[in-house]
Amino acid sequence: METVGKVITCRAAVAWEAGKPLVIEEIEVAPPKTGEVRIKVVATGICHTDSYTLSGSDPEGVFPVVLGHEGAGIVESVGEGHLSAISPGRGVLPDGTSRFSCKGKSLFHFMGCSTFSEYTVVADISLAKVDPRAPLDRVCLLGCGISTGYGAALNTAKVESGSTCAVFGLGALGLAAIMGCKAAGAARIIGVDINADKFKVAKEFGATDVVNPKDHSKPIEEVLVEMTDGGVDYSFECVGNVGIMRAALEACHKGWGTSVIIGVAAAGQEISTRPFQLVTGRTWKGTAFGGYKSVDSVPKLVGDYMNKKLKVDEFVTDTLPFEKITEGFDLMHAGKCIRVVLRF
Amino acid sequence: METVGKVITCRAAVAWEAGKPLVIEEIEVAPPKTGEVRIKVVATGICHTDSYTLSGSDPEGVFPVVLGHEGAGIVESVGEGHLSAISPGRGVLPDGTSRFSCKGKSLFHFMGCSTFSEYTVVADISLAKVDPRAPLDRVCLLGCGISTGYGAALNTAKVESGSTCAVFGLGALGLAAIMGCKAAGAARIIGVDINADKFKVAKEFGATDVVNPKDHSKPIEEVLVEMTDGGVDYSFECVGNVGIMRAALEACHKGWGTSVIIGVAAAGQEISTRPFQLVTGRTWKGTAFGGYKSVDSVPKLVGDYMNKKLKVDEFVTDTLPFEKITEGFDLMHAGKCIRVVLRF
Repeated sequence: METVGKVITCRAAVAWEAGKPLVIEEIEVAPPKTGEVRIKVVATGICHTDSYTLSGSDPEGVFPVVLGHEGAGIVESVGEGHLSAISPGRGVLPDGTSRFSCKGKSLFHFMGCSTFSEYTVVADISLAKVDPRAPLDRVCLLGCGISTGYGAALNTAKVESGSTCAVFGLGALGLAAIMGCKAAGAARIIGVDINADKFKVAKEFGATDVVNPKDHSKPIEEVLVEMTDGGVDYSFECVGNVGIMRAALEACHKGWGTSVIIGVAAAGQEISTRPFQLVTGRTWKGTAFGGYKSVDSVPKLVGDYMNKKLKVDEFVTDTLPFEKITEGFDLMHAGKCIRVVLRF
Repeated sequence: METVGKVITCRAAVAWEAGKPLVIEEIEVAPPKTGEVRIKVVATGICHTDSYTLSGSDPEGVFPVVLGHEGAGIVESVGEGHLSAISPGRGVLPDGTSRFSCKGKSLFHFMGCSTFSEYTVVADISLAKVDPRAPLDRVCLLGCGISTGYGAALNTAKVESGSTCAVFGLGALGLAAIMGCKAAGAARIIGVDINADKFKVAKEFGATDVVNPKDHSKPIEEVLVEMTDGGVDYSFECVGNVGIMRAALEACHKGWGTSVIIGVAAAGQEISTRPFQLVTGRTWKGTAFGGYKSVDSVPKLVGDYMNKKLKVDEFVTDTLPFEKITEGFDLMHAGKCIRVVLRF
């Protein structure tokens, strides 16, 4: 069937309300307008940020919405003409409207992506063109988690060869950060998690040491300062917990240590520390998408994966058909996966 | 009188107790031991940190003590032999003892300097040898305030040419930070203070704009974000107020803005912000002595002053004889000076 220029009816996981389960629905996806592209989504990862917004904790969350932002697919059709690069607004495309509807109601877009749908419409600046030989049910993860953790080490912290690093939280972000530290030539990479089941894979990714805060009566920052004779050169918070963000900063060596926040904290929560921690030479940073510019960088990251410089397959612990999306969220919440990929 | 190897009796301002005025006393200064040097102090600045410790707010403060840490002088005698570089301890020299006594009581050292005394004994690593032609009642200020603010811009923030900067607090530190921003080629330097009397001199040092938060009903960070179409590239907190530290961070542009804490906050106070501020690309740093290594850098800074690349004279608004030290503190507390220099 020729679909160009027509409304497509397809399956999507609709988040009707905050805090309610996703519902697989038939939705309508309108054709792309100027500067937009309609995509047939082939695969999508499930990220904690999807869950965070679904939970209602995200103050910028709007409903009903099609979530999902770690996707890969094939161009179905392209709107006529070009727009100058305008960032998508909150829940809508750059022109201020939505291309999704269901049961007569308009659905919001999410992060300019909305990959929990067989078809989606995005602004052209939201797309990165990648090697057509790349397996889409793997490289979809380069759209968020892997790139963010990996880039946090390489671009944001700029980890130096021979340095000592600590990575707090050994999920997909943390493993990607470990991979980035290793790629940068770190001599020592300490993985920290309260779930000892994660230590084996952390070592496979490059952790040289693992520490479980539950095994120590002292605060974890003190444990790390002792282990490293004064603190680490770089630390990464990959959990989204403001207390751990503080510990990650305070585990850094005075004079030069840099801590990077990667995790997303719950709304309204604040980080704090004594200013002395910074005055004595520590640096506190954060990262969004690992400091990469997606249009230019994602194709290069895909190339690095194809050339076996970058692990991606190893992050995919579970591949499920799209209709099992709720099972995928359950696996993530149970901490029983690294990354779940859904295939359409 | 030959003094080498003998105890010297001289005047010093003794801080007998926290929160009490300094008392000019006759004190005894023992000869320098291994790795130490006895100095005839010629001039010393008065810094807010001296006042902070005298007030009793400094949790690391010990009494009775000889304060003062922004001094310049002439070597009187040198102890025999060398020590490997050991940092001075809290209130004592590297060997764990004091060279000061008064009325039969031992007095503590301060920051390894104790310049509020006609003679002091310091570890050799606490000294920087400077051009003998330099006026000591000027270059003493390169021992703390000027170097700290200037280096915060040049070394810690690494201000780039053409950038936009904001400096919160227009005392000696803030003026030095402005001077550093200007030396780095900043295109716009916004001075912020609630005391409009400070704006004239801020402009003389290089501020292109001045803002008084009292003139605005909005929070100062919002005022600056509006003035600069999104925020400043670099900001400097030169007050020591944790609320202003937050404002200085949040006045930075997302994506790349860097805020540097220079001021010293009261004991127990904490900085805080939403982690989103960092995750969206801001960097929070601090600086101690502007990132300079004193032994190597102070002689170079003195050279820059002698070659008229660096203002120092302009910081000295009041020169008083040493015995008027309490008057000097009063001038500082009243905000009526940039820097007071005491001459012996």
